[in-house]
Amino acid sequence: MSTYIAPVRDMLFAMNELAGLDEIATLPGYEEATPDLVEAILDEAGKFATEVLAPINASGDRQGNRWVDGEVFTAEGFGDAYRTFCETGWNGMPAATEFGGQGLPITVSTAVLEMWKSANMSFSLCQMLTLGAVEAIAHHGSDTLKATFLPAMVEGRWTGTMNLTEPQAGSDLAAVRSRAEPREDGSYAISGTKIFITWGEHDMAENIVHLVLARLPDAPPGVKGISLFVAPKFLVNADGSLGARNDLVCASIEHKMGIHASPTAVMAFGEKEGAIGYLVGEPNRGLEYMFTMMNHARLNVGLEGVAISERAYQQALGYARERIQGRIIGDRSGDKKPILHHPHGRRMLMDRKVRTEATRALAYYVAGCMDRAKASADSETRAANEARLELLTPVVKGWCTEVAQGVTWNGIQVHGGMGFIEETGACQHMRDARITTIYEGTTAIQANDLIGRKVAREGGHAMRSLIEEMSASRATLEAHADVQLRKIGAAVGRSIQALTEATDWLLTAYEPRPQQAAAGAVPFLKLTGTVVGGWLMARLALSAHARMDADDAEFRGAKLVSARYFAEHVLPEVQALRDAVVGGAESVLALPETLF
Amino acid sequence: MSTYIAPVRDMLFAMNELAGLDEIATLPGYEEATPDLVEAILDEAGKFATEVLAPINASGDRQGNRWVDGEVFTAEGFGDAYRTFCETGWNGMPAATEFGGQGLPITVSTAVLEMWKSANMSFSLCQMLTLGAVEAIAHHGSDTLKATFLPAMVEGRWTGTMNLTEPQAGSDLAAVRSRAEPREDGSYAISGTKIFITWGEHDMAENIVHLVLARLPDAPPGVKGISLFVAPKFLVNADGSLGARNDLVCASIEHKMGIHASPTAVMAFGEKEGAIGYLVGEPNRGLEYMFTMMNHARLNVGLEGVAISERAYQQALGYARERIQGRIIGDRSGDKKPILHHPHGRRMLMDRKVRTEATRALAYYVAGCMDRAKASADSETRAANEARLELLTPVVKGWCTEVAQGVTWNGIQVHGGMGFIEETGACQHMRDARITTIYEGTTAIQANDLIGRKVAREGGHAMRSLIEEMSASRATLEAHADVQLRKIGAAVGRSIQALTEATDWLLTAYEPRPQQAAAGAVPFLKLTGTVVGGWLMARLALSAHARMDADDAEFRGAKLVSARYFAEHVLPEVQALRDAVVGGAESVLALPETLF
Repeated sequence: MSTYIAPVRDMLFAMNELAGLDEIATLPGYEEATPDLVEAILDEAGKFATEVLAPINASGDRQGNRWVDGEVFTAEGFGDAYRTFCETGWNGMPAATEFGGQGLPITVSTAVLEMWKSANMSFSLCQMLTLGAVEAIAHHGSDTLKATFLPAMVEGRWTGTMNLTEPQAGSDLAAVRSRAEPREDGSYAISGTKIFITWGEHDMAENIVHLVLARLPDAPPGVKGISLFVAPKFLVNADGSLGARNDLVCASIEHKMGIHASPTAVMAFGEKEGAIGYLVGEPNRGLEYMFTMMNHARLNVGLEGVAISERAYQQALGYARERIQGRIIGDRSGDKKPILHHPHGRRMLMDRKVRTEATRALAYYVAGCMDRAKASADSETRAANEARLELLTPVVKGWCTEVAQGVTWNGIQVHGGMGFIEETGACQHMRDARITTIYEGTTAIQANDLIGRKVAREGGHAMRSLIEEMSASRATLEAHADVQLRKIGAAVGRSIQALTEATDWLLTAYEPRPQQAAAGAVPFLKLTGTVVGGWLMARLALSAHARMDADDAEFRGAKLVSARYFAEHVLPEVQALRDAVVGGAESVLALPETLF
Repeated sequence: MSTYIAPVRDMLFAMNELAGLDEIATLPGYEEATPDLVEAILDEAGKFATEVLAPINASGDRQGNRWVDGEVFTAEGFGDAYRTFCETGWNGMPAATEFGGQGLPITVSTAVLEMWKSANMSFSLCQMLTLGAVEAIAHHGSDTLKATFLPAMVEGRWTGTMNLTEPQAGSDLAAVRSRAEPREDGSYAISGTKIFITWGEHDMAENIVHLVLARLPDAPPGVKGISLFVAPKFLVNADGSLGARNDLVCASIEHKMGIHASPTAVMAFGEKEGAIGYLVGEPNRGLEYMFTMMNHARLNVGLEGVAISERAYQQALGYARERIQGRIIGDRSGDKKPILHHPHGRRMLMDRKVRTEATRALAYYVAGCMDRAKASADSETRAANEARLELLTPVVKGWCTEVAQGVTWNGIQVHGGMGFIEETGACQHMRDARITTIYEGTTAIQANDLIGRKVAREGGHAMRSLIEEMSASRATLEAHADVQLRKIGAAVGRSIQALTEATDWLLTAYEPRPQQAAAGAVPFLKLTGTVVGGWLMARLALSAHARMDADDAEFRGAKLVSARYFAEHVLPEVQALRDAVVGGAESVLALPETLF
């Protein structure tokens, strides 16, 4: 099994050329993010990922967690790694400075997060959930809640969770039934069963702070009657010390296909007197608050797609470099060569390398939008970046995770029979990746969000503005002196055309024929991801070509090959996706339910 | 978890309309295969699959096999099920009558085999390997070998294996090192280590008959120095009773991603005095003999793709019919409806239903070719069907199993979060499916076989003849009175054009630029599978339309919708595949190995 080495050079290139890190570092609050500091952070994080998190990834998968009478015991080494992680300051690094974080650009923490996820996806989820909870409390909680919970959570001594799903309420949160009864002291007594609670119970931290969606007694039905509560495992005394055990318990943990080392809990709230919880913000606005943090969580799950693709690619590459396969077709020497030298091996590795790079390009580009939307001094820039961020959030989540399915699947294929043997290590990445198109909203949910809220309901302005910007790049490419860049420009142009046609169709169809529009939602999301990915790959190629005389000419040359591969092998896929959107709805919907 | 119900009506429709079962039943030796008998067989087999094999599929996955000191104990219920399977005569059913089988058309046994594989893929492998060994011995073994081994193997009292792979010799069998030293009595002493031996050791049968590839002392190097031997676990006395334990032992079994209930053994031959083995046929022709049976095995693994797709589809459909998801977009009633009623659910199920049907269409069509190639009285018909069979064997293996990856993956996606929980049952199908693109030759191996031996080296005659026949169907479709069939015809026409262009390119490129040709081999295989699948779906639609006044008008109507969906959503994918073949090789091969 190969280890994980953080692709720092690739990361920096995308951060600089696509997210615009130079410019971000000039924004108020981000001045500390100098190139030297950023590189130092990535190097240190990469070392930590390789040396501390990667070594317990396979063993964690093998061992999983043990549930004993409501307690969950994590796999060997996880507790120690987590304590080191927190002591070194990595846990709170992405948080705002006012709560003990380092206040670095999101672009930087995105790259660091990618490393944790590549090295050990199960482990990374604990921090991801904690920081999501921190964000929700920081944005919507009272000063008392902030003071009580945030410092220990940012430090990592306490971890956080999101309790949304119930057995009857998955994608459809309107069906949430958990209840919260007001108590005399202003707190609430929460009762109900929550399922799929990531890191809902474990032995790595002193306390676990649950964010819980529940209904007040007088709440209206549906999504507008759901409130958000904080319910800690241990109540917190006025001096910040831990008090009584709250009335909430982990009833069981799930036996899953992947992320075995991340405990997925069934949480039973209020089986006795009710779990004591504190209202976050105003009543009945819980779902809205959850969505604040869910958008960031969705980007982070999209990033998981990038990360697990990178990990699977590295594993496959290691094997393909070493495993001797036989003679290469047409090679007169007759020497037996490693898989990577064979045309079919080359194709598999090239394809997966390039698709991984394209997902990283998209995720980092969107991280840059988030930084500018948050910190730019200019309100128009903020608004434009916010609109782009909103548009592309479901695409990052949906497309990057869908791409990861093929990349991790292929990671096994490269190994041949050995790939199917668990000890080889390739299976875990595919099994781990499998959850990413499901949690934080399935690909279909992302796609419905994209075609509805993000495109049709705002008249397609954000999409048109993106298409305009991509078309400008295409013009630059097509006018370029370099013939390869011109060819890439032509392919990008054809793909933009397909996206434009699909968008036009969608805008016309959405109101009068919403089911037909929805029938093409997932192809539309994939189409968008592929076209934007191709555009960003082409931009990387342009940047690479602009300084081919630099020290890293080989690296830059490789970026040109990547963009060309994407243009020739991946971009042609958009035509079929466009067809599925604009002409495919009827045959999706034609068959009566009884004839399936 | 849903159970498995054999799709007998779908199977019969494909057998009749594509394999041409009526006509096959008139061929010498197949006269017994009357429509009534065939239907009765399928009904009985379907019952057996549902009642005996399906119930131990999930438990077998959970329990796997136990290895103790060289013995392998199978999962609960497997031994009993296997004995019933043999006693009912199912084990030997596909074998030739002269060895105790029922001598039915391969088309019929293909449908039955699909059922075993759907119900319990792990279980089905034992019979599949046994029948493969029967075939090799029947074709190439001496009368003594046949008399000694075949009756008990066909009956199922003894099972069979194929011992090809060694740690250093996977796809590259030229690297086989196992040795066979002549003994004085005319037998051989075999030594060496074989890996990935399916059902190599188990407790279900009295004896296990290993077919082993090994080298004689004076053998030339490479593939032309490999001979085939029979080495039974227990030697067989002259009276047919079992004698001494042979010097071969199961050293361990693998811990795999899927097919947990099928033991995958590491076999150590000749650790003491040498395992006694008997030469099959002539020396140094072992690989050639193995390929006789490997071609059939490849078709059967392709069929596994169909079977596991069907199983995953049924599992997903059961959930999609029952699980209430929420309100349907644009539905004013506001009622909450099951997943299947939602556009995105409909798309997922429709897509998977149709792709599964297309793979079955291909597998059964090719089974029909095999029947005619074997039994037709007319030598020209035999030759034409043999050529078609040869051409399409790697496509059945490669394409049907690749399609199964998406179908089983999607089977999980339909379940949302529940899909990722092992107890739901969807994961197993995806994990089981994962091996099918690897064993019996990876997709890349199939693709190289297709572009090399099956297309380029014979000047593309077989492919051109297929294209010609498909073009005739297209003309029928395009001239049809029904507008939907005309549209399908147009889509089929565009896809044939793409296949023609790719074939032309391949024929030009293969000799002068073999590595470029090989770089596009897998896309070429997928292109071929998709185009042929689309053609067969269109033929099914034509047949369905021809008798829309029959009792089963609804069923026939559904076939038209399936063909239309395939034409609108799947066939457009061939354009990108064509691009990858004809214009993509340079960017596959451009990057130096060091820059990966």
